[in-house]
Amino acid sequence: MQPATPLPGTQDLLFEAASRLRRCEATLCGRFEEKGYAEVIPPAIEAADVFGPEAFRALDRSGRLIALRADFTAQVARIAATRLAGISPLRLYYRGSIVRRVAPDSGPVHERLQAGCELVGAAGPEADAEILALAAASLHALGIRGRISLGSTGYFSALATAAGASERLAAALNDAVDRKDLPTLRTLCEREVAAGKARDAILLLAQPPRPQTEARELLARAETLAPSEDALRALRRVSAALAAARGLGAELEVDLGEVRGLGYYTGIVFNLYAAGSPRPVGGGGRYDTLLGRFGDPRPAVGFSLDLDALVPLAC
Amino acid sequence: MQPATPLPGTQDLLFEAASRLRRCEATLCGRFEEKGYAEVIPPAIEAADVFGPEAFRALDRSGRLIALRADFTAQVARIAATRLAGISPLRLYYRGSIVRRVAPDSGPVHERLQAGCELVGAAGPEADAEILALAAASLHALGIRGRISLGSTGYFSALATAAGASERLAAALNDAVDRKDLPTLRTLCEREVAAGKARDAILLLAQPPRPQTEARELLARAETLAPSEDALRALRRVSAALAAARGLGAELEVDLGEVRGLGYYTGIVFNLYAAGSPRPVGGGGRYDTLLGRFGDPRPAVGFSLDLDALVPLAC
Repeated sequence: MQPATPLPGTQDLLFEAASRLRRCEATLCGRFEEKGYAEVIPPAIEAADVFGPEAFRALDRSGRLIALRADFTAQVARIAATRLAGISPLRLYYRGSIVRRVAPDSGPVHERLQAGCELVGAAGPEADAEILALAAASLHALGIRGRISLGSTGYFSALATAAGASERLAAALNDAVDRKDLPTLRTLCEREVAAGKARDAILLLAQPPRPQTEARELLARAETLAPSEDALRALRRVSAALAAARGLGAELEVDLGEVRGLGYYTGIVFNLYAAGSPRPVGGGGRYDTLLGRFGDPRPAVGFSLDLDALVPLAC
Repeated sequence: MQPATPLPGTQDLLFEAASRLRRCEATLCGRFEEKGYAEVIPPAIEAADVFGPEAFRALDRSGRLIALRADFTAQVARIAATRLAGISPLRLYYRGSIVRRVAPDSGPVHERLQAGCELVGAAGPEADAEILALAAASLHALGIRGRISLGSTGYFSALATAAGASERLAAALNDAVDRKDLPTLRTLCEREVAAGKARDAILLLAQPPRPQTEARELLARAETLAPSEDALRALRRVSAALAAARGLGAELEVDLGEVRGLGYYTGIVFNLYAAGSPRPVGGGGRYDTLLGRFGDPRPAVGFSLDLDALVPLAC
């Protein structure tokens, strides 16, 4: 007798659950297209090194190592860097499922149904703000009250360097910041980081996120502690660009401790939350070096939504 | 630098190609739903033994062997046999991509985009005819002039047994029949099969397929050569049921040499062709033992369409 249940971390969607997913997909894709984004459909498998160690890997007939799609952004970057090289800006969207060997967070989830957008060939705070606004509008289109928690990859790295942290210590601090584990962070700082501005700034990273109205104050304080950081300047400019746009349709918080799992982010990073849901329902950020891996160095920024998490919340 | 092209046998669909695929999917799903079929969305990975050796396999974190979806029918059978046990008849449809390590035919195609239907818990020629008619209507809905080549798995097996063929010889004969390779089939028969009715019937399998009007004559001749086969009776009844239905919307041919690659078919099998396309654009058949593997022995019949092949032909 064969196994009769889906693998742990995967699920079967039947009938009304399948219909709901398709309706949400249609709503999102309609919104993406309204904003000038066009669909790309990458394959389910890639050469193994397109993805990181989180991807499932297998051997093909000729002994080549292949990997299951673990991330759409790397695939879209490959496509943008090759068949669409030289066309800027590119506005691309995708939908489908990703499968990961190592869950990006603590749950045993292997498969996620996603939809998302990538804005390629556009640097600067206006491009960041376009993507943040589209992420917010997407949640709004599903009838979900959303919250964006906005941070920056560069800030933590700069602080760790300023604090003279070893690679091991930087990873441990990063992990504690990511989990908002203030006790562990405090212990690590007290034992292993010399007292000073850098240490104070690292401790500030595990503070609860702030609504946009307080963001200016927090950024000012962070700048005092670790002045003239590019990352802070970028955050300030994005916040200003978003404030200038009307009706974001979602709450915006600045969280300097926002660290997303994937290694390719180079600027802003953000998680998306739905009111009443403690776990992120999506996220994204800027990745200005990823296309270069495929031979076409161009800046890019994007987001993805986890439909498994969103569909049950959508109207 | 990372590989910049998709893997051999996979492709990126961009913009208009992606839109065309989505329009065809919507047309097909609309037709399936009109006929009372409801969507199920199975996961991208399964326990390894849900699929055959054609599936890509990988190890998960706990050392369990998993497999990429290589076939929707086995997944739908798992779902029908568990969460939907006891509900008959079930009319289910799916869409998405399958990935295979070993291409089911000579090309190096790894990934295929499919849509298809399964009618579970229904035996008999009326159920077979419903599925054949829906397959024909699906091609028609896409604006494609279709042809169904209808055969039976049981007939070849019975003939091979009657001819006293070893397993090795039966496999070689099956392969030659599948490729319609009459010279090889003739050589094999002359060298290794004793002259007689069974040998004559095997040679008949590599004859070109016949339109429905000639099918009755062919079946009568096949019956003379290998009389009282269940398989022939089933074909005759399906042909009669289809003839009774009005407007199939596709040509129907009987081809006793129709052998589909997958091992689970137990009754009728068929390939679907589009006018002007020498390779099948889909196919299906009856699989009355597959659900039993998941603990719920029930008859079933279904078909799948290869959208990669159909989309370029669709209006």
